Amino acid sequence: MKDKFYTYIETLQKTITSKLEEVDGTAKFKEDIWQRPEGGGGRTRVIENGSVFEKGGVNISGVHGELPDSMKTYFGVKEGNFFACGLSLVLHPKNPKAPTVHANWRYFELYGNDGEIVDQWFGGGQDLTPYYLFDEDAVHFHEVCKKACDKHNEFFYQTYKKRCDDYFWNTHRNEARGIGGLFFDYCKATEAMGMQDWFNFVTEVGNSFLESYIPIVTKRKDLDYSQQQRDWQEIRRGRYVEFNLVHDKGTLFGLKTNGRIESILMSLPPHVQWVYDHQPEEGSAEERLLHILMHPKEWV
Amino acid sequence: MKDKFYTYIETLQKTITSKLEEVDGTAKFKEDIWQRPEGGGGRTRVIENGSVFEKGGVNISGVHGELPDSMKTYFGVKEGNFFACGLSLVLHPKNPKAPTVHANWRYFELYGNDGEIVDQWFGGGQDLTPYYLFDEDAVHFHEVCKKACDKHNEFFYQTYKKRCDDYFWNTHRNEARGIGGLFFDYCKATEAMGMQDWFNFVTEVGNSFLESYIPIVTKRKDLDYSQQQRDWQEIRRGRYVEFNLVHDKGTLFGLKTNGRIESILMSLPPHVQWVYDHQPEEGSAEERLLHILMHPKEWV
Repeated sequence: MKDKFYTYIETLQKTITSKLEEVDGTAKFKEDIWQRPEGGGGRTRVIENGSVFEKGGVNISGVHGELPDSMKTYFGVKEGNFFACGLSLVLHPKNPKAPTVHANWRYFELYGNDGEIVDQWFGGGQDLTPYYLFDEDAVHFHEVCKKACDKHNEFFYQTYKKRCDDYFWNTHRNEARGIGGLFFDYCKATEAMGMQDWFNFVTEVGNSFLESYIPIVTKRKDLDYSQQQRDWQEIRRGRYVEFNLVHDKGTLFGLKTNGRIESILMSLPPHVQWVYDHQPEEGSAEERLLHILMHPKEWV
Repeated sequence: MKDKFYTYIETLQKTITSKLEEVDGTAKFKEDIWQRPEGGGGRTRVIENGSVFEKGGVNISGVHGELPDSMKTYFGVKEGNFFACGLSLVLHPKNPKAPTVHANWRYFELYGNDGEIVDQWFGGGQDLTPYYLFDEDAVHFHEVCKKACDKHNEFFYQTYKKRCDDYFWNTHRNEARGIGGLFFDYCKATEAMGMQDWFNFVTEVGNSFLESYIPIVTKRKDLDYSQQQRDWQEIRRGRYVEFNLVHDKGTLFGLKTNGRIESILMSLPPHVQWVYDHQPEEGSAEERLLHILMHPKEWV
């Protein structure tokens, strides 16, 4: 399973980065291959200063070895070896009318003393963070998420949509990071869903990514915008940074387990502002966005 | 003691903000008085878009009531009431040649069931974060810190200078936030130092702040700089954000105990950049700064 999933994310990285370069039209992904001293490594692909994408990364990694102490605590085990691989992506378009998107699909194995697999699971999801909200974009994104889910289980969409709203919650701001999508974790074999079924589900979701995002960014990338709208985007990107550095388990986990810092923090936006006590105007598009972020809604 | 220290920080806030307005010449501090629902409140003063100070805050607060759960865990007590007050300041000058400065001086009381004081202590410190390093500025800042310390105890400077280097360490980057200063905490009554002696020490340090910083910012505020130097400042400000949101106990404590978010996060810089895997040129001033941040040195 681990080889099969790693092969899958290798191909998916190529497919996604090719399509994104085509949409951008100017910038190309820069590739960094890195090794992890304790075992494994990754292939980081970053795009910067494009016509469409101001910054973005589409990274894969496959790491293995002895469980770091922090992971032992996290999983409540005393010792053991592990394997983990996944694809992570974040795209920050330049145009404030085009939303930021994040996705991650991952697979994990824990081994016993004789090297046998004692636990294994999939996790992942994708979510959208608009700065100016076009309802039709939110609906489209969620419809694609739902369609991928529905092929596997009629309850997946509502369950994983709710988990996404719960997870990407900036508690100290009392608002969501964005308008959500899917979030699932610890997807383990059951009578109803074997590991192969989970593989089919996770790859279905991964394969749906371009369909969920490309039509949106294509529609919004050339819209006019003012300096004030650009400022709003940079202020909202500050909230994105706050979520990733204060709350996001994946980021903190990476920072505290000696992960490759530049690959982890490629998720941070290129230009960001913090303005003291910024309040959008009453009745404005900015205020409406905030209202929806504070009250996550059903889009499908 | 609590009334005496609160009166002190009220006056100090006035003294510092007046002087900073004079140095800036254009912008004035905006004042927000706020109440904490559970008891107490504060006076936040923020300056933005000045000629010298792009953003800064000089805040005081005095809060009291039942210990929040997170504070109970932090202090290892089951229940009780507390009082805490302090002055916090962060200044982000516009000119990349002028350093960012941070300071905080605080006083804490814990009460028993009959309202008697069961524990009390002072804490605080100040530290400097240059983007372009002028050795004479670092020496001046540390000399003023040392002079204030030496009046009270010959070991304070070396002890609190070391603690500052240890505390403001961005573990995930393996570098200091800046060139340090002083950091002290849990300054409690002993045979050698009663609470009044600690009060005298902490206020001596607080009173030395303007002497430590104003000559530096005055000397650097009008120096020429290029767009490239400004970009470097904004990239380094990203490290400041990373420290405050990932590692700073004060910030995380505030965010997780329902503090006044805008007063806590006024410390974040106004304009910030994250560039993938940015490396300064060999032999450059930027590279020299990084080297010193990775190897904290003795300035006095």
